Amino acid sequence: MPRFALLIEYDGTPFAGWQAQADQPSVQGAIEAALARLDPGFAAGARIAAAGRTDAGVHATGQVAHADLTRDWDPFRLSEALNWHLKPAPVAILRAARVDDDFHARFSALERRYLFRLIARRAPVTHDRGRVWQVLNPLDLDALRAGAAHLIGRHDFTTFRSTMCQSASPIKTLDEISITGHDIPEGREYRFCLRARSFLHNQVRSIVGTLERVGAGAWPPERVAEALAARDRAACGPVCPPQGLYLTGVGYPRDPFAQP
Amino acid sequence: MPRFALLIEYDGTPFAGWQAQADQPSVQGAIEAALARLDPGFAAGARIAAAGRTDAGVHATGQVAHADLTRDWDPFRLSEALNWHLKPAPVAILRAARVDDDFHARFSALERRYLFRLIARRAPVTHDRGRVWQVLNPLDLDALRAGAAHLIGRHDFTTFRSTMCQSASPIKTLDEISITGHDIPEGREYRFCLRARSFLHNQVRSIVGTLERVGAGAWPPERVAEALAARDRAACGPVCPPQGLYLTGVGYPRDPFAQP
Repeated sequence: MPRFALLIEYDGTPFAGWQAQADQPSVQGAIEAALARLDPGFAAGARIAAAGRTDAGVHATGQVAHADLTRDWDPFRLSEALNWHLKPAPVAILRAARVDDDFHARFSALERRYLFRLIARRAPVTHDRGRVWQVLNPLDLDALRAGAAHLIGRHDFTTFRSTMCQSASPIKTLDEISITGHDIPEGREYRFCLRARSFLHNQVRSIVGTLERVGAGAWPPERVAEALAARDRAACGPVCPPQGLYLTGVGYPRDPFAQP
Repeated sequence: MPRFALLIEYDGTPFAGWQAQADQPSVQGAIEAALARLDPGFAAGARIAAAGRTDAGVHATGQVAHADLTRDWDPFRLSEALNWHLKPAPVAILRAARVDDDFHARFSALERRYLFRLIARRAPVTHDRGRVWQVLNPLDLDALRAGAAHLIGRHDFTTFRSTMCQSASPIKTLDEISITGHDIPEGREYRFCLRARSFLHNQVRSIVGTLERVGAGAWPPERVAEALAARDRAACGPVCPPQGLYLTGVGYPRDPFAQP
């Protein structure tokens, strides 16, 4: 069966997360329902696999999944047909590509990239509601960066993973946390970009929630190192809400969507 | 009675427009309802006046209105109290300021600034739904700018105003239309920034809808000059939808919100 990779963008607000669940709207379920309109395999219950199983309320601008279809498709026509059947769900297939049978959206991935958007201002957000985490007071960017520096590299991230995390090991290598700040009307937005081969469940939200405490001056930056060394979930700062989180990209040995 | 200027941001999606209407949600109505919780004058039916009466679905990041209150308020506390009572409407008071009695949000304004966001791509927009106008094919930026150049300056804009427009004269001076383009995932976004002392009803949407025809190659840029010279509503291109339009700022002889 021909295998296709799908590059997917979605607004996570109306979904209980990526993963299909009985009686709950999911991004996976929406895409599989659209595939079922095109393909007898999916009409009979075939499933897709994704690089990152995002939580309820988490967004994506660069999720990747793969699907095995019964017949061959022109990739552009496949993306157009899926977008047609996905309406009106806020899910878009940005691109489809024919891939080899050994490509697996999840297991072939070498890198995941996440963005977290945090807005600091007094007045409530209006246009970005459901798309950012809002706090009331500006953060200290140098302190944020000093705190984040303790997390770069290969560590046991037990402190920064959900107790529900099903990963076999808490040891992960965090390749990047870059943090930028820019002014917005009457406030400031901070963007956290994180990059790793893979992440533990709630790892990004646990890290950003902890760093916010540092940026707010409630934690000295060194306390992040102590929390990490404790390897104890109780040492983590507050886990921040999902709506500021975006899966922005997935890296593979060869980009399946590279233009020929 | 002490007069206050309010700097206002809103998502226009759930509103029938700025202007209060019986049985329809309006931004003005939402703010007056919040003021009525704080002030006996508004509880008794006092009204606010705004610089720009935006249409249904149109957004603002820098609307200005003024209100006469019964008692004096600390401006920061006033904005905080209004934001509290505005919840959960997507309307935020970014700043409040005490102004002189001769300040009028509408009649003192020397300049209005609008932004129109247009996204060109095949895949449907997800995160920006209701906040941009989407077309399917990329536009020619040079052609857009060549078409726009014909509109700069003082002209009779009869072609570019709604037949419902109540302005006494169709003659307006358009000080600026700057257009930029930047890449977005699998597409391109165009931003139109327009600036004038005042605008006619539907003028921005009539201009952007017409320029889109030029950018798409359906109209030569010179046809914009011909349409303008015709002074005939029938010569206008299609009026584009409201959801890409933002009132971004209002200019006054002295900025009422300038920090002391």
